Amino acid sequence: MSDSTPQSGSRPKVVVVGAGFAGINAVHQLARHEVDVTLVDRNNFHTFQPLLYQVATSYLPPEQVGATIRAVFRKQRNVKVRVGRVDDVDWDERAVVLEDGDRLPYDYLVVAAGATTNFFGISGMEDHAWPLYTMGDAVRLRLHLLEELERAAAEPSADLARQTVVVVGGGPTGVETAGALAAMGKEHVGGDVDMRVVLVEALPRLLNTFSEKSGRQALDDLRRRGVEVLLDTAVASADDKGVTFKSGERIDTRTVVWAAGVQASPLGRAVGVELGKGGSIVVGPDLQVKGHPGVFAAGDIASISPPPHGTPPPLVAPNAIQQGKHVGRQIARLGAGEQTEPFSYFDKGSMAVIARGDAVTEIPVPGLRGRILRVAGLPAWLLWAGVHVVYLIGFRNRVKTLTDWLWSSLTSSGGGAILVRATRTPKPDVG
Amino acid sequence: MSDSTPQSGSRPKVVVVGAGFAGINAVHQLARHEVDVTLVDRNNFHTFQPLLYQVATSYLPPEQVGATIRAVFRKQRNVKVRVGRVDDVDWDERAVVLEDGDRLPYDYLVVAAGATTNFFGISGMEDHAWPLYTMGDAVRLRLHLLEELERAAAEPSADLARQTVVVVGGGPTGVETAGALAAMGKEHVGGDVDMRVVLVEALPRLLNTFSEKSGRQALDDLRRRGVEVLLDTAVASADDKGVTFKSGERIDTRTVVWAAGVQASPLGRAVGVELGKGGSIVVGPDLQVKGHPGVFAAGDIASISPPPHGTPPPLVAPNAIQQGKHVGRQIARLGAGEQTEPFSYFDKGSMAVIARGDAVTEIPVPGLRGRILRVAGLPAWLLWAGVHVVYLIGFRNRVKTLTDWLWSSLTSSGGGAILVRATRTPKPDVG
Repeated sequence: MSDSTPQSGSRPKVVVVGAGFAGINAVHQLARHEVDVTLVDRNNFHTFQPLLYQVATSYLPPEQVGATIRAVFRKQRNVKVRVGRVDDVDWDERAVVLEDGDRLPYDYLVVAAGATTNFFGISGMEDHAWPLYTMGDAVRLRLHLLEELERAAAEPSADLARQTVVVVGGGPTGVETAGALAAMGKEHVGGDVDMRVVLVEALPRLLNTFSEKSGRQALDDLRRRGVEVLLDTAVASADDKGVTFKSGERIDTRTVVWAAGVQASPLGRAVGVELGKGGSIVVGPDLQVKGHPGVFAAGDIASISPPPHGTPPPLVAPNAIQQGKHVGRQIARLGAGEQTEPFSYFDKGSMAVIARGDAVTEIPVPGLRGRILRVAGLPAWLLWAGVHVVYLIGFRNRVKTLTDWLWSSLTSSGGGAILVRATRTPKPDVG
Repeated sequence: MSDSTPQSGSRPKVVVVGAGFAGINAVHQLARHEVDVTLVDRNNFHTFQPLLYQVATSYLPPEQVGATIRAVFRKQRNVKVRVGRVDDVDWDERAVVLEDGDRLPYDYLVVAAGATTNFFGISGMEDHAWPLYTMGDAVRLRLHLLEELERAAAEPSADLARQTVVVVGGGPTGVETAGALAAMGKEHVGGDVDMRVVLVEALPRLLNTFSEKSGRQALDDLRRRGVEVLLDTAVASADDKGVTFKSGERIDTRTVVWAAGVQASPLGRAVGVELGKGGSIVVGPDLQVKGHPGVFAAGDIASISPPPHGTPPPLVAPNAIQQGKHVGRQIARLGAGEQTEPFSYFDKGSMAVIARGDAVTEIPVPGLRGRILRVAGLPAWLLWAGVHVVYLIGFRNRVKTLTDWLWSSLTSSGGGAILVRATRTPKPDVG
């Protein structure tokens, strides 16, 4: 790997593409090393993705679920932030090429561009369903929901489709979104609207990555809270008036929320490297990109070949965090002339919130392979809240987020559910 | 005024148009009276206007400067909220007519539709300047500023116009906005951009409604903080590349902030009542609309004829609050068969913030006519902070706002300056 080591005398340049969990953690890991890091993202902020559903349902303002990258790295002197879109990588010249033509030369490169929504080619879904993967998705869905609820409140008899929301996908995102939506109608329009929330899952159970018992519990809890859960129900198509299932049945709705899948960012495809499943970038056991020494991929965009322990790690935040840290450490090792180490995923367990004060949590018991500790209800929710606060990396401050959050969780004023549309021009949208 | 008294046996219907300071306070005043109130506004939230400049400069999220109307009146049982645009009033049938055709019958009506930006017909201003009167204005300006700053940070040598902001108007809004902008560049893009802030005032002094001494102090403080202040400078026109003064001089800028004036909402004109200066609704000493018993106007849309004490009260929040409360009381009096009372404005003084920890405040001394108590610097800022927290009516809760605010004021992480664009469609804005 000597060809990836820069000439002595100059500080090695590290470019990190993507300020998600993987990118942020790779940069953070390099804080005390003699390198110059440029972190590039098309947004000026990091998104705490596991809480996006709370933005979409107006329980948290975007500012508490995103933090500007500059604020995150305010105290890390060796980081420069560049807001821009990455178009390509010039492998020969070792430079990242931005959309505006700017080039960022690198000695080490970390590709951590994440994933995008995967609609699996289902007819009409891309045009009519609301994804929930980015902050923009969450803000758009929030505004749309508030508009529909206000219209339904104004004319209660008019259009039931306005107060019906169909959530597709019974994984953690779908379960959490459906649970929050069930509360949102009542709390944010003050009982003026009776919202119908339908959760649709193609498999015969919810939370497929959890135990049978947890899936059952999520099902019971959601139903008790008024969510209609349709299992064994595959979606055939969506249009501007509703969603149709493979059975031929149909639900009229103005809001189909897509929480059923993601795929690797198209960046891997664009830069011409060996691709794995769904366009992901194939990396070796140390997360270096095949054939590109000094170049790493981490997080949702990376697929390890061969997978560690025979199974690929799941596309979840803890995996991205661990991979980001690992990549940061490997760059430091290469800089010090050491060999890289293989990545190994440590499964800390899974959590899904069903409602305020109600969650399911599963934690692997160390030393007992395959045994998990199940926690449910309020203790699981408290555990979830604690873990999420701890992980809110570099947000404005942890204490503030904690108090805001506890407050939002204890009260339900819905005061933050304000509906502001911002167009690109200074002209106000007067009617 | 017997024709405005409803038949006994039914609860009188009160319709309040506008959820600004006047409307909110009129409704609140009617809490313990036997009336049914409908509050109608085109937004689902109340805006705490004096803090809009903090939204525009990314110091506070919109959710902390706006609160949903339903949350404000959660505990007031006799209030219904209707989100919609008022088109007309049917005076014969005594009903407010909404844009969608819906009609809200009333026994008593409060018109508190506020004001809109007044560009005084200056060429190009309406199309190219950014007003700062509504939440939408503030959010649009915030996104625009963050975009320009990010572009300037990416290409520092490219375009000085991107990092130049011209604020037109040396009143409290202009002074506060210029002061916050001077801090924003450094704090939100981490010193990557050297922002140029120019404050332009046609008069030979700032803060014209304050004492000479306070105006002088604001000028000195702003200049010390790096704001270029141009006095005696009238604006002739604006275009997409900058602003031109009557002297013929010009400043290249992508951002002209308009803080120089408002006029009454066009609703007065639309409904056909006697109009005063700038299209305001002429009301008698008790704030009842001339020729329309049981109909009141309050706040920025109302002009009292003849003005109390010979001078009209200023278009500021305390006046709107006092007028709103007065109108609520008068409706209660009419309902009880009592005579109405004349409104009298109590001047509590004026405040303008220059920067975090720096303000000017003037308070009339009771009993000493024309004498004012001047407070400046940190004590004035603390006074300002205290008064504003107390007045944040019905926001999610006062304690939370206070802690958020103190925190934002003590730190300057800029972590909330996240740039999220939300379009109307579910499709992400991929490039």
